[in-house]
Amino acid sequence: MDTRSVTFLPAGVKVAVEPGIDLLTAAGKANIEIKAPCGGDGTCGKCAVIIKSGKAKARRESYLATRLAEKGLNLACQSLVEDEDLVVEIPKISAMGKHQVLVENVALGEGVSDALREYLLNVWQLKDLFKQKHEDPLHGYPLNPLCRWVQLTMPAASLQDNRDDLSRLVLSLRKETKCTDINIPLSLLRKLGDTIRVENFKISILLSEVGGKAEVIAIEPGHRHQPLYGIAVDIGTTTVVAYLLDLRKGTIVDTAGTHNRQARFGDDVISRIVYAVDEPDGMKDVHQSIIDTINTLIQDLLVKQRKINEADIRVMMTAGNTTMAHLFLGINPQYIRLEPYIPTANFFPVVKAQELGIRVHPDAPVFCFPAVASYVGGDIVSGTLFTAMGKADAQVSLLIDIGTNGEMVLGAGDWLVTCSCSAGPAFEGSGITFGMRAMHGAIEHMQINPETYEVSYATINNGRPLGICGTGLIDGLAKLRRTGIIDRAGKFQTHLPTPRMRIGEVGPEFVLVWAADTEIDRDIVISEADVKNLLRAKGAVFAGIRTLLNVVGFEFGSIETVYVAGGFGNYLNIPDAIAIGLLPDLPVEKYKFIGNSSAKGACMALLSAEAWAEAQDVAGKMTYIELSVGNMFMDEFISSLFIPHTDLTLFPNVDL
Amino acid sequence: MDTRSVTFLPAGVKVAVEPGIDLLTAAGKANIEIKAPCGGDGTCGKCAVIIKSGKAKARRESYLATRLAEKGLNLACQSLVEDEDLVVEIPKISAMGKHQVLVENVALGEGVSDALREYLLNVWQLKDLFKQKHEDPLHGYPLNPLCRWVQLTMPAASLQDNRDDLSRLVLSLRKETKCTDINIPLSLLRKLGDTIRVENFKISILLSEVGGKAEVIAIEPGHRHQPLYGIAVDIGTTTVVAYLLDLRKGTIVDTAGTHNRQARFGDDVISRIVYAVDEPDGMKDVHQSIIDTINTLIQDLLVKQRKINEADIRVMMTAGNTTMAHLFLGINPQYIRLEPYIPTANFFPVVKAQELGIRVHPDAPVFCFPAVASYVGGDIVSGTLFTAMGKADAQVSLLIDIGTNGEMVLGAGDWLVTCSCSAGPAFEGSGITFGMRAMHGAIEHMQINPETYEVSYATINNGRPLGICGTGLIDGLAKLRRTGIIDRAGKFQTHLPTPRMRIGEVGPEFVLVWAADTEIDRDIVISEADVKNLLRAKGAVFAGIRTLLNVVGFEFGSIETVYVAGGFGNYLNIPDAIAIGLLPDLPVEKYKFIGNSSAKGACMALLSAEAWAEAQDVAGKMTYIELSVGNMFMDEFISSLFIPHTDLTLFPNVDL
Repeated sequence: MDTRSVTFLPAGVKVAVEPGIDLLTAAGKANIEIKAPCGGDGTCGKCAVIIKSGKAKARRESYLATRLAEKGLNLACQSLVEDEDLVVEIPKISAMGKHQVLVENVALGEGVSDALREYLLNVWQLKDLFKQKHEDPLHGYPLNPLCRWVQLTMPAASLQDNRDDLSRLVLSLRKETKCTDINIPLSLLRKLGDTIRVENFKISILLSEVGGKAEVIAIEPGHRHQPLYGIAVDIGTTTVVAYLLDLRKGTIVDTAGTHNRQARFGDDVISRIVYAVDEPDGMKDVHQSIIDTINTLIQDLLVKQRKINEADIRVMMTAGNTTMAHLFLGINPQYIRLEPYIPTANFFPVVKAQELGIRVHPDAPVFCFPAVASYVGGDIVSGTLFTAMGKADAQVSLLIDIGTNGEMVLGAGDWLVTCSCSAGPAFEGSGITFGMRAMHGAIEHMQINPETYEVSYATINNGRPLGICGTGLIDGLAKLRRTGIIDRAGKFQTHLPTPRMRIGEVGPEFVLVWAADTEIDRDIVISEADVKNLLRAKGAVFAGIRTLLNVVGFEFGSIETVYVAGGFGNYLNIPDAIAIGLLPDLPVEKYKFIGNSSAKGACMALLSAEAWAEAQDVAGKMTYIELSVGNMFMDEFISSLFIPHTDLTLFPNVDL
Repeated sequence: MDTRSVTFLPAGVKVAVEPGIDLLTAAGKANIEIKAPCGGDGTCGKCAVIIKSGKAKARRESYLATRLAEKGLNLACQSLVEDEDLVVEIPKISAMGKHQVLVENVALGEGVSDALREYLLNVWQLKDLFKQKHEDPLHGYPLNPLCRWVQLTMPAASLQDNRDDLSRLVLSLRKETKCTDINIPLSLLRKLGDTIRVENFKISILLSEVGGKAEVIAIEPGHRHQPLYGIAVDIGTTTVVAYLLDLRKGTIVDTAGTHNRQARFGDDVISRIVYAVDEPDGMKDVHQSIIDTINTLIQDLLVKQRKINEADIRVMMTAGNTTMAHLFLGINPQYIRLEPYIPTANFFPVVKAQELGIRVHPDAPVFCFPAVASYVGGDIVSGTLFTAMGKADAQVSLLIDIGTNGEMVLGAGDWLVTCSCSAGPAFEGSGITFGMRAMHGAIEHMQINPETYEVSYATINNGRPLGICGTGLIDGLAKLRRTGIIDRAGKFQTHLPTPRMRIGEVGPEFVLVWAADTEIDRDIVISEADVKNLLRAKGAVFAGIRTLLNVVGFEFGSIETVYVAGGFGNYLNIPDAIAIGLLPDLPVEKYKFIGNSSAKGACMALLSAEAWAEAQDVAGKMTYIELSVGNMFMDEFISSLFIPHTDLTLFPNVDL
């Protein structure tokens, strides 16, 4: 078949594609990431591009496409390559920025300006996290990694002691480890005879001992020092973070983070499931994207740590939500999405790196954190492990992880209840007209003059404004309410005497930044529809917390600590979040930011078999509350669609 | 690189090879099997060929090569392709015949003439074996195959019962099987969600449950009837036999046998180990040869059983000696051969058919019978299982398997002792001037007139004589002694007045058949060196038996049953064997031919998990007696180098 060339500007990357392919896919082939929260459905409008030369064919007519066309823009996902070669410019607003990943030493390490570091440390309250880099990643667990070298000196074979090599090894290993269930793969058995005789029956065995079963991963002659590293990966829907660990020392060698390349199939897990299930080769593409993402991180780490080789990484731990775990392992995720929302597995088999194409030692075992339900995944279990909420002496605590979904865990020691509320990705910027992730140029804080309604704002990295990130949205919501621009139900007061208040194409909107001051040459606004979306998101989280408390018969006052986890949580302004009714009205000192607790739990589990056993225990004892059963959640949700809430007695300290 | 062509006659097969390659290897490439008991060392002289056109280069000068050259013959293994294309004729004596395999219904089935069938039934006492084909292959064990379909009806998932699919399946399976250790591979997990929903949570699971562990091999929707077949293979050094079993009915569907294609690397296990270890790609070649051999058998069976497909064969059981098991699994066999004779493994891991390239269902588990020592292998354990010698109520019995080695087991229930004596392959025709396997044209019985020394003989299939098979050799030895041609020590009485007694190139020899009456145009003789070889072979077996008895302090009289196993044992004339001192002087009715007990045990174990468990138990409790430790065996051996023995009181009923 003939191909056409598509050149993407400003990068100038040219790619050959077959006619009929859309520009979003073509950009993917060129390794250029274009925003596509809707997964290429043509509904979000975020993948707008400018066709500078050549003509593309529209997949179908749509209101959105027509509106954009008036501005000289085309939806990449709806524009098909036809007869002509194309030159396509990707405006800044459509390109994926270098994402600010929630890894402390990336955010705070080299390549970050002093000003930004100061900003992050102060404004985002990252000081604690910065300290954590120098904390013990074991968090009190003993160093006993999921993979370790065991040195054996066996009695030499003789005519009098003529046991076979395998029995000799197994008996010797049993004495050393007390483990009776020992498995040695055929590949190692094939050369065992030679291996154990190189240094006269002295050998080193790489062993992974978990749950009373020992898997032999490698056998080397003699008792030489063998390098031993592991990778712990937090597979987030948006962001993927890898920690390179020295398993001998129990330390973090380095970390790296990037955005999840699956983003081109949609921003949220649902779009990715739909893509995986409905598209030809969809499952393969979505699976391969996350493998590629992780391989890139590993390569980045190895480029920085030149003394460590791919083959020195002998084990891998991953934590991710249930959909991410399914897609990572290549398990059909379809039933996660369909009622009654059943994952194929909550506890996952240990697989070899080579089965997945992960570029570490091919025989490295890959562990996945167990999940609890379709929407309470291994990332939450890992976070719970990190908080020690499942330990016998734990006080009543609440763990909240607000991302695309809002997941929460309430409990103390023996009991843990958990739920997930579809908060929607509003706080991650999706579904909000000018919403964006916490990247360069995102509006992060604002002040609105109550008299003049003039706006002053701060952006991340002091960039010219591109949009509004989650923190900015929460701050904005609080300020819109405080200045009376919206009422408690989120309705816009359209009579206000300011040109910033106006009726846009889809209803009332308030202009935060005039086009001339932006990087995108468009007015940045918050619309009434945006506010409704934000209220639904914050309402769902709050209603989830209330439901968990109701189930176990507790009040807010019973909670000793609220752990706020996750990428968004980390940038959250607690007083703002309480003010809009997103978080319960508890003293600020009860709130603890724990950052990427999923990654931290993954590090702990990789470094300590005891922590990994605890993770299994935590996953096993979590009771999942399905919010769509019964009316309890829905009643709470409806009451939470106000600022801060219908029942103001729940927010005695809030005065908006 | 330029290649030369070698054309092999009479088949007319042409093959292109690189200069420097020897004709034995070239024949292998052309899939033509030439005898090479020494493995291509140039010492056995069995691979003689006639170069009809072109000139080959001699690898090196040797007495044997020179002798053969005088007769217009070249050793294939020592003749290297050089500059010229060659045309090479393979004389009948050097070609591998269509081997008479010890499978009852091949030997007695279609394609066998009535005369031969009658002959086999009567002369070779095969009537019992013929009957066995219609016997229950389970031999009293319950039908409980190593692989079976389990039908499950699980409660359907709902919002109230929202366990993950895997937990649902595992819990349901636990109830059904009582097994707690259940493993499901990632490949099945990947599509589990779809599979269990096709028929609303009704599924069929293909399970292999062994030793308290259950391995899920396949999952199909619904409760349809699923075909289920298994293959049991006896991997002999010489002969490989496969049984196709219906695992639902517990019956033998069909059998097939052929020679082990590894024969081109040598007749005995030592030559094959040497080839595997010393030659470039040797291990790969030797391993692949047995895989190819087995695949050919499977294809033969499937061609005959058209309703059964490759993928319907879901499990495989193999029994073979320790070297065969190592080579089959691709495990380095080197240390089996080197003192102190240590196998890499006696108990082998279960592997998947696809790992080995066996052409049945790729996920079929492949089991290997456990071995006891380097020279007491899974074939002996399987045979012991078949005899039921390891059962609690067993009487004292002796199992003898005479092949290249002589392996024997003595015991009753709780105790079993075993040893292996290197009888050498004399009884299989190797190391004997005109020795050959039991094939068409082999001299099988003879009479020598005590007055005239004229010889009358019978050959297998009434073919013109090509050589002498094992039975013929034992019969010959008895007759040579009875007529006084040799003395009790095997020394030839060279003064006898007959032209048949003469001094050949290597010493005294006796002509059995004059050249004119043979198929090979050479006098067929037994030499004094042949007789010495035979005495060493029979002496080793007898000394082994004596040593086992000595170790446990028993006499011949204690033995209730002597089980005679194996290909050679099956054709054995017991009175002859007692007469030359190969077997103990016990009443003939105590001897039981059990045929290919290794294959029969393999069938039992495949059809019954209880039999397989018993096999593990038998292998575990066998005490291996290393004959090279101490003087006991050597003393017995020296005493056994006479006909029948130094101590005639051991053979009260023998009068030679």
